[in-house]
Amino acid sequence: MKGPERIAADRIAADWIAIDWGTTNLRLWAMHGARMQARRESRQGGLCRDDFASVLAQATQGWGELPVVACGMVGSREGWVEAPYAAVPTQAVPRLVRVPGQRVWIACGIRQQEPPDVMRGEETQIAGLLAARPDFDGVACMPGTHTKWARISAGELCHFQSFMTGELFALLSQKSVLRHTLGTASGNAAFDEAVAEALSQPHRAYGRLFQLRAAALVGDQDPDNAASRLSGLLIGCELAGAKAYWLGQEIAIVGAEALSALYARALAAQGVTVHQADGEASTLAGLHRAWQSIRETP
Amino acid sequence: MKGPERIAADRIAADWIAIDWGTTNLRLWAMHGARMQARRESRQGGLCRDDFASVLAQATQGWGELPVVACGMVGSREGWVEAPYAAVPTQAVPRLVRVPGQRVWIACGIRQQEPPDVMRGEETQIAGLLAARPDFDGVACMPGTHTKWARISAGELCHFQSFMTGELFALLSQKSVLRHTLGTASGNAAFDEAVAEALSQPHRAYGRLFQLRAAALVGDQDPDNAASRLSGLLIGCELAGAKAYWLGQEIAIVGAEALSALYARALAAQGVTVHQADGEASTLAGLHRAWQSIRETP
Repeated sequence: MKGPERIAADRIAADWIAIDWGTTNLRLWAMHGARMQARRESRQGGLCRDDFASVLAQATQGWGELPVVACGMVGSREGWVEAPYAAVPTQAVPRLVRVPGQRVWIACGIRQQEPPDVMRGEETQIAGLLAARPDFDGVACMPGTHTKWARISAGELCHFQSFMTGELFALLSQKSVLRHTLGTASGNAAFDEAVAEALSQPHRAYGRLFQLRAAALVGDQDPDNAASRLSGLLIGCELAGAKAYWLGQEIAIVGAEALSALYARALAAQGVTVHQADGEASTLAGLHRAWQSIRETP
Repeated sequence: MKGPERIAADRIAADWIAIDWGTTNLRLWAMHGARMQARRESRQGGLCRDDFASVLAQATQGWGELPVVACGMVGSREGWVEAPYAAVPTQAVPRLVRVPGQRVWIACGIRQQEPPDVMRGEETQIAGLLAARPDFDGVACMPGTHTKWARISAGELCHFQSFMTGELFALLSQKSVLRHTLGTASGNAAFDEAVAEALSQPHRAYGRLFQLRAAALVGDQDPDNAASRLSGLLIGCELAGAKAYWLGQEIAIVGAEALSALYARALAAQGVTVHQADGEASTLAGLHRAWQSIRETP
């Protein structure tokens, strides 16, 4: 490895490595305590159990032989080592499972029996949120492929619910008949209107999806507005279903900037005050909290 | 061409050809008046404007040079010749557009300005329904990729609405995270329960989708029941949105047997009486009605 990163890696005094290892993305940070020294990111998917060790070795090349704390799909049944789900209610510091023969620990996901739900990766973001705000009593909204709403109280995750909003938006805008008529979504008036429609009349929102195609055929609908409307209809449907989570609650939105802003905008229109926290920073803070828990163990 | 079909084609005295020409499927019938003499079906898609004539010639080989009446996407902007949408309210006999230089007529689709909607192909099924039941006053439900509900009165199509239920079911069961946990849907108790849930609490249905994945991870959910639940949730959401169409109305379901049976079952649970009509037979009857209209023209 050459260039600036090698120089940086030489100068750093990292003592552990944090990893967010998802189904398709691998993000790594060389850490000195809570301080990030270097960051890497790569795409890879479809790994077999035997691939993980060599992928890790290659991805951390030049960082030295450091202990690793990872979260995400790497701990699923199809991952490196299954890190079994902890059941709610549960402490917000992730349980860890050690990979046999390796100085690698993987965070356990969280499951809920009734209604059935699971998370894997978001538990680490919650730990990060609580590391920054230990007294947080409210709801974490974590927008993404499967957006999670989680009730947090007294340092515990009490219950949670997942919505397929991110995946549905991707499928509808890229794979369905709507793909012909959609531009780029943004938080504009069309978005606001669609959120309000879906929230006040959730039973009608479903029938409004095909209109996003038809309005382009019988009129001159703007493609960006159509995409914003689709985003608004789906987020509005989610807010209608998640009302018990956000009504009268303090909300922390933890996620990527642009998507979090859409949720914040939709909630603000309902008079809800939200705080936004960066998703990656929260993951990193949660992994650090987990790393601390290893060092605290006698 | 050899074998039984050639023999049949030689014996028949067809005087026109009926075609349902969709985006991916081509179905052809050699007709003598209202009587079907032979049937062919093939898959083909992605045709350019110049391809249609040769595809037609090949697909009708052995049937002789007969006039053709077609419906479906062949009349769309990307089809052979654009057969412009007629606006509602409109007579249920499809308008026809002739392909220049050919004895080929294509049925016009129908459009609605507010709320925006379009159909192309279903207008011919409605004509077929009315050919069989000229005094029908009620609602036609045409389940499919984009299910249509159409209010019909005094031989006219008054207004209609499309729902993306078929396409959403396909996307969710084949392309989403749910694909790992779904078997084969059927009209069983799990379907009934999901329809009832979605109809009575449409705002909750959206949040129940991810549970179809989670229930397999935290419990022992039966894959076929999960698929039936997904089908029930989507059809239930559709019924919630289409309530103004079916409540207190006479319903004719026009479509493929298995899917129509699910809609009939869901509506029956709401105390609605429905009649089922075969989708292909209705298309054929509608094309025959259109063929008659050509011959009636002086």
